[in-house]
Amino acid sequence: MHQFDYTPEELMEKAAEMRAYNMIALTAAGSGHTGGTLSVMDIAAVLYLKVINHDPANPGWDDRDRVIWSAGHKAPALYVTLGMAGYFPVEETVKLRKLGSRFEGHPNRLDLPGIEVSTGSMGQGLGVAVGSALRARLDSKNYRVYCILGDGEHQEGSVWEAVMSAAHYQLDNLTGVVDLNGLQIDGTTDTVMSIAPLEEKYRAFGWEVFNVDGHDIKALISVFEKARQVKGKPSVIIARTIKGKGVSFAENVVGYHGIPPKDGRYGNESLERALADILGEKVNDKFPPEKVNHLLGIAEQYRADVESELNNRLPAYGNDYWWNGSGIMRVEMDPTRMGFGRALKETGEDIDTIAFGADITSSIKMDEFFKTNPERKQRFFNMGIAEQNMTTVAAGFAKEGKTSFIGSYGVFVSGRNWDQIRTTLCYNNLNVKIAGAHGGISVGPDGATHQALEEIPLMYYLPNMKLVVPCDSIETEKLTKLVSMIEGPAYIRFGREATPVVTREDTPCEFGMANIIRFRGIRDNFDGAFDTVLSADYADEGEHLSIVSCGPMVAEAMRAAWILKQEYGIETRILNIHTVKPLDVQSLVRAADETGVILTVEEQQTGGFGNIIAGAVTRGRAVGKPLALDMLGINDTFGASGAPWELMKKFGLSAEYIAGMAKDLLDKYRSSLIKTE
Amino acid sequence: MHQFDYTPEELMEKAAEMRAYNMIALTAAGSGHTGGTLSVMDIAAVLYLKVINHDPANPGWDDRDRVIWSAGHKAPALYVTLGMAGYFPVEETVKLRKLGSRFEGHPNRLDLPGIEVSTGSMGQGLGVAVGSALRARLDSKNYRVYCILGDGEHQEGSVWEAVMSAAHYQLDNLTGVVDLNGLQIDGTTDTVMSIAPLEEKYRAFGWEVFNVDGHDIKALISVFEKARQVKGKPSVIIARTIKGKGVSFAENVVGYHGIPPKDGRYGNESLERALADILGEKVNDKFPPEKVNHLLGIAEQYRADVESELNNRLPAYGNDYWWNGSGIMRVEMDPTRMGFGRALKETGEDIDTIAFGADITSSIKMDEFFKTNPERKQRFFNMGIAEQNMTTVAAGFAKEGKTSFIGSYGVFVSGRNWDQIRTTLCYNNLNVKIAGAHGGISVGPDGATHQALEEIPLMYYLPNMKLVVPCDSIETEKLTKLVSMIEGPAYIRFGREATPVVTREDTPCEFGMANIIRFRGIRDNFDGAFDTVLSADYADEGEHLSIVSCGPMVAEAMRAAWILKQEYGIETRILNIHTVKPLDVQSLVRAADETGVILTVEEQQTGGFGNIIAGAVTRGRAVGKPLALDMLGINDTFGASGAPWELMKKFGLSAEYIAGMAKDLLDKYRSSLIKTE
Repeated sequence: MHQFDYTPEELMEKAAEMRAYNMIALTAAGSGHTGGTLSVMDIAAVLYLKVINHDPANPGWDDRDRVIWSAGHKAPALYVTLGMAGYFPVEETVKLRKLGSRFEGHPNRLDLPGIEVSTGSMGQGLGVAVGSALRARLDSKNYRVYCILGDGEHQEGSVWEAVMSAAHYQLDNLTGVVDLNGLQIDGTTDTVMSIAPLEEKYRAFGWEVFNVDGHDIKALISVFEKARQVKGKPSVIIARTIKGKGVSFAENVVGYHGIPPKDGRYGNESLERALADILGEKVNDKFPPEKVNHLLGIAEQYRADVESELNNRLPAYGNDYWWNGSGIMRVEMDPTRMGFGRALKETGEDIDTIAFGADITSSIKMDEFFKTNPERKQRFFNMGIAEQNMTTVAAGFAKEGKTSFIGSYGVFVSGRNWDQIRTTLCYNNLNVKIAGAHGGISVGPDGATHQALEEIPLMYYLPNMKLVVPCDSIETEKLTKLVSMIEGPAYIRFGREATPVVTREDTPCEFGMANIIRFRGIRDNFDGAFDTVLSADYADEGEHLSIVSCGPMVAEAMRAAWILKQEYGIETRILNIHTVKPLDVQSLVRAADETGVILTVEEQQTGGFGNIIAGAVTRGRAVGKPLALDMLGINDTFGASGAPWELMKKFGLSAEYIAGMAKDLLDKYRSSLIKTE
Repeated sequence: MHQFDYTPEELMEKAAEMRAYNMIALTAAGSGHTGGTLSVMDIAAVLYLKVINHDPANPGWDDRDRVIWSAGHKAPALYVTLGMAGYFPVEETVKLRKLGSRFEGHPNRLDLPGIEVSTGSMGQGLGVAVGSALRARLDSKNYRVYCILGDGEHQEGSVWEAVMSAAHYQLDNLTGVVDLNGLQIDGTTDTVMSIAPLEEKYRAFGWEVFNVDGHDIKALISVFEKARQVKGKPSVIIARTIKGKGVSFAENVVGYHGIPPKDGRYGNESLERALADILGEKVNDKFPPEKVNHLLGIAEQYRADVESELNNRLPAYGNDYWWNGSGIMRVEMDPTRMGFGRALKETGEDIDTIAFGADITSSIKMDEFFKTNPERKQRFFNMGIAEQNMTTVAAGFAKEGKTSFIGSYGVFVSGRNWDQIRTTLCYNNLNVKIAGAHGGISVGPDGATHQALEEIPLMYYLPNMKLVVPCDSIETEKLTKLVSMIEGPAYIRFGREATPVVTREDTPCEFGMANIIRFRGIRDNFDGAFDTVLSADYADEGEHLSIVSCGPMVAEAMRAAWILKQEYGIETRILNIHTVKPLDVQSLVRAADETGVILTVEEQQTGGFGNIIAGAVTRGRAVGKPLALDMLGINDTFGASGAPWELMKKFGLSAEYIAGMAKDLLDKYRSSLIKTE
């Protein structure tokens, strides 16, 4: 038996200390989930520092009790709890969400001891808990399994599958803990998609239900003991909590779901204020300014070291070509999602347009549909965290003649509902447009689980599907409007981070046709340095090579063209394949035949896009002509937490890497010509 | 108002007649769902012939009541009901499941008037119904929406998402009808994955609940009227029914889920007996033998016409090369799924192996795990129709050190749970092996919704995933064993239909390495006519072209090699890429460089496999050498119902088509050489 045995008073102190570390880590990270980490903290303290049987010195001990955090976004609470329990020095947690640290935006079990399972996508943890509990029974193990769930998470059907199966198998060694703080990203759970009465639902599904004040340490200790006594069925503890608990400016504030203290957003907000709220008169004793600064300093030093290492590894050239790195070639930055929002606002004028929310409505700019047009709210339907149902409900409208817009982060809205997209949208050929936000690793600190890297192959091979991947916010606006006018399902992939605006209102943009982009010489403004024409209008200029890309990587390809010209005199033909399906095959075949060198560039798993290009090129090109082709992308690995531009360097996606690879490919091509001559 | 106004007695007669047509159609089809179509028939009769407001002459009339069949496999009941209501002549329904007919195995709204939405994958219809009902409110339409659900279907979490949303939006114009027959494919619903108490669950989710005897016409009429009166919330009618109702040998028989009357399977079974059971003394009046024979004759004539058309279109050669078409080159046929079953039986000896069911346990041969080893049943867990939860529960075992085998039809076990595969299996790198059955259109009469055509791109781009696509049942057995010994997640794609056995026990098979297959001359037995070696052991023989394939298409490629040699003297190098990930890149590059001609062949959406090959080849090959590459597969369209080999012809996948395309590609290559010389 390895249990901590703190008194309730000591646990309260520990929980306060954990909240303090949590707020320091979030502040150092500059992002992360204040609300949910504070609401769950007392539960975490009681579990890890009192209730469960575990051994921080031996995290893999097979008789330990398991705690599975299905609500992965509460990771910082998990980290500070593990630190407090001694799995590692708690100070380390200030490296939260920094590139290369073990404290990812969502927990990664392969990085950090004490994490039972990597989570982040809602509604998957309880099933894992069921498996772990069934295994205990099979192998006659006495460990108990706990699963921490959010309340909004209960909108995911997968949770009810797991709930049903736990009762079916009478898993009395399993206890769910619901952090019922009543808020989710889009508002109160009651208004977004009511899960009430949760207690009755669990009872109807055959569980024993306990209610508790989730901030009453003594009550929590007692209720966990009661749950342990339940026989013949699983138990759930519904813990009423306050989101943002302990920090005055965050308590019960919807907007404090996913942000750290930010000055002035909702009043007088700061880390100092948070610590004072949490620790009261003990603040100077426990966390004096020098300690706080020391901790923040650890994080900053770590970040600076990472940055310097990344910059040292970056291919070096004679000049600085970085975005707005010098007075010339200046560019505006704007997230592509803004373009989606602008288009939706306009498209929403049509009264037959319907929009849907999946609890990240504002993040993906779906709220532009009604933000300045409140009368359209009757045509907006929040579905909660339920991507599958959002898809089929949208289909229900579409089959009645409406045009439906659904959306979420790309991982969840292409993958969680793939079967629904296939059968209900594509097989029925229904007019549902899918906004796939957060495409690519440039998502940043949320990390791997939230960085969509596979949507192109997921969508491309579906009959009737159309797929656009616009390069900047202006093109996103144009293409969103274009696909809204085309019958049938369509997917629009866009990103989170601000990326260069490299097109203008008057830049040509035709659905299904590639744009050809050519560097013409250095200008004050980046976009003025390039000519862009429709592929059908383009005449071969005898360029040395082609770069084929889509999405914000087109901007990197353009910067690479600048580097290649400036450093080596190499002329580059850039193909902006904003429409991936239907594909402009002719433009690709021409690029292959006319330049002989093709580099594909994608912010995706390498080949998800590149292999489609390779297939089109090889099927269509002149057989006898030489061709050198290579691909740049993310090489069969998951993303990570970090700042967006750090990640672009880390994964070798920036123009410096593109130019280097293009140069190598051209050299390979040229040397092969010499050999065969 | 367009309503039928039959008396209860007339409705009973209609229902009997519909059951009779249903049994004739199923018999003519040779497959299909006897149990569920008979249990739902009285409900369907009451709905379409009494309750709902509709106009068979104007199926798109916007004020009609909607009936959405979420349980798409009950399609024949829907068809005979629509026929009886006058949407089309009911006799036509005997063309059920035949290639090119409008009566697909699962309903296709684009084919047939009166179908509200195409379904087939469980748990998607209620969401569509919610959307349709919300739209009625938005546009002030008075129509009502009904949704027919199976009971086992309630194991899908997506159903509970829809249930939750209908209550949240207080949809009193929506009524669910649960055909509660208590049986699903794997057994009783109570034993497979209990949904009881369903009534309490619906109440806890905020619905008004009615119970009714689903075979009592008067009670059904009355309960639909009561449901119409409910205000402020959705209503559900839980109709207790008998699976196989009306046909003595099918009533309450689990095995009669998905088969037509089959002589002697469970006793004295026949269409005649079924019709006598259904119609009693009226049988000779209503369905005399000459009428039945006439109806069966319509179906047979239709099938024969289709077959003859397909054969006329088949590329003709000097000889008959069809499988076992003559005394030579004879081959055994065995479904690849049998190989999976044999391997699992053996792998199951390891007590750390766990297997899971998703209600099609026997169909995909997962039951081989325990069939002759009942003591292993404690290591087998049925999860019901809940692919998402099956995946995460299996992960729970895997994280505790077990090797988990999950499986279902490929559409559902790669796509319904894709996000779970990504996050919980791949990101965690857990030891879960996925059996993806029913790959390809050779699935046959179940039709498009059940024919997986996209699994390769879905799985290939996931980090940590391994992917094998074995060519026959022997190779399936070998590769299943091999991947069971490799750490991490893996996907095994196999098919339903019996396909040629083209390897032997002593044929080399190494995970991650392609096999090279060469035709050596006509033999009595097909497999004796070919040599097969590991790619690393193969020395170039100066072949004219390469065919790159995987899965049972390898056998077609081999037959194509025979045709090419026999008809044109062309030598073919066949690459059997049984391991798609990790890919044997070297073997592909060599094939490109050494033969210059590559045809990829896949029973998938064209390019899902072929583009991966094209990418590998173009990145790795010698730049200056000529290369002709093309792809054969299913060209961006859904499958269809039909006999497996009919579908292989219809979609142009048989060897006759492969040989033709290979010949054309070689000609293109040769003529380009002449031009460039």
